[in-house]
Amino acid sequence: MGRWEPDARERLENAALELFLEHGFDNVTVPEITARAGLTTRTFFRHFVDKREVLFADADRMPILSARLVLDAPHELTPMELVERGLPMLASAFEGRLDQLKQRKAIINSNDGLRERELRKMERLVEAIAAAFRERGIDDLTAAVVAETTVGVVKVALRRWIESDGREPLQAIMSDSLMRISSAFDQLYERPKVGQKVHSRPDL
Amino acid sequence: MGRWEPDARERLENAALELFLEHGFDNVTVPEITARAGLTTRTFFRHFVDKREVLFADADRMPILSARLVLDAPHELTPMELVERGLPMLASAFEGRLDQLKQRKAIINSNDGLRERELRKMERLVEAIAAAFRERGIDDLTAAVVAETTVGVVKVALRRWIESDGREPLQAIMSDSLMRISSAFDQLYERPKVGQKVHSRPDL
Repeated sequence: MGRWEPDARERLENAALELFLEHGFDNVTVPEITARAGLTTRTFFRHFVDKREVLFADADRMPILSARLVLDAPHELTPMELVERGLPMLASAFEGRLDQLKQRKAIINSNDGLRERELRKMERLVEAIAAAFRERGIDDLTAAVVAETTVGVVKVALRRWIESDGREPLQAIMSDSLMRISSAFDQLYERPKVGQKVHSRPDL
Repeated sequence: MGRWEPDARERLENAALELFLEHGFDNVTVPEITARAGLTTRTFFRHFVDKREVLFADADRMPILSARLVLDAPHELTPMELVERGLPMLASAFEGRLDQLKQRKAIINSNDGLRERELRKMERLVEAIAAAFRERGIDDLTAAVVAETTVGVVKVALRRWIESDGREPLQAIMSDSLMRISSAFDQLYERPKVGQKVHSRPDL
């Protein structure tokens, strides 16, 4: 007790997820989590601010990780090349953690407050990516919409990966998602422009 | 009092927005709103379930309106054509209401609970659009990612329109946003594929 526990963080996470699933997020206390993990509350608070943080620690790291991926990438890359390059690296942060993410999703979906918090975390991810794009000199509007599109892909791909029980690699679902959007745009601009609505195509 | 008031809804909305801005959302009661509007609380409850509904009544209509736009469109349209066609119609629902939307945004941004609720409403919009796409026979993954992209465009365009004080028409910002995403994909796939990362391009 009190000694440095190299796997303490993971044991606390697993204990917390188990207990949240068994008793409901609201009914679990930090001492119950540490008892299940065989660790002290002091150790818990070295790793997490509160029990909610156990669920959102990853979500808090994603904006920082994503911004770094964008900012550290070679100078000549276009916005979508940054996305295509960054998504597999983001995906690798989730590899091998399917069961944990499934449990986490079940807990979050069972609690309105947690679902809303999850949405805000995704919003912060959008903002972080857009800010990193702007820092690379990408114009505001492109930065904003490409960041939204990227996080849309991350959300859809993560959900699909978890729901399909990891049948396809997360990375493949992300690339596939990106290609679907691209194809949808191809269909738009390749079709004959019969009856085209002038008002919907402003000058660029 | 109690009689049918043709402009009651709008008067209640305006009174509520004024009071929320003056005193903070949490500190305003329904009787205060009706007093300011010169109407009865009975009239209020004919239009809104509670004071929060005044802020989210539009947000509740958007999923229904969007789904109808998708489902009623000609059969041969591709997903992105549906989006290109639907966005101007969605934009027209906001025309002439810039001041009201600016006030609403200020109120929502000042309150964490309202911000989270706004995010959930946007999430419901994504789900409604994706469901309408699927009903048209569009595959799940395309439906999901194109719906996310669409709502990303709506969010970014509305924010930009409000922040720029309506300098450009909302509809033009939406089309512009869509074109920026499309251009970003063009840049990706037109570039020479030197050093292409094989893992990020799965078979489709």
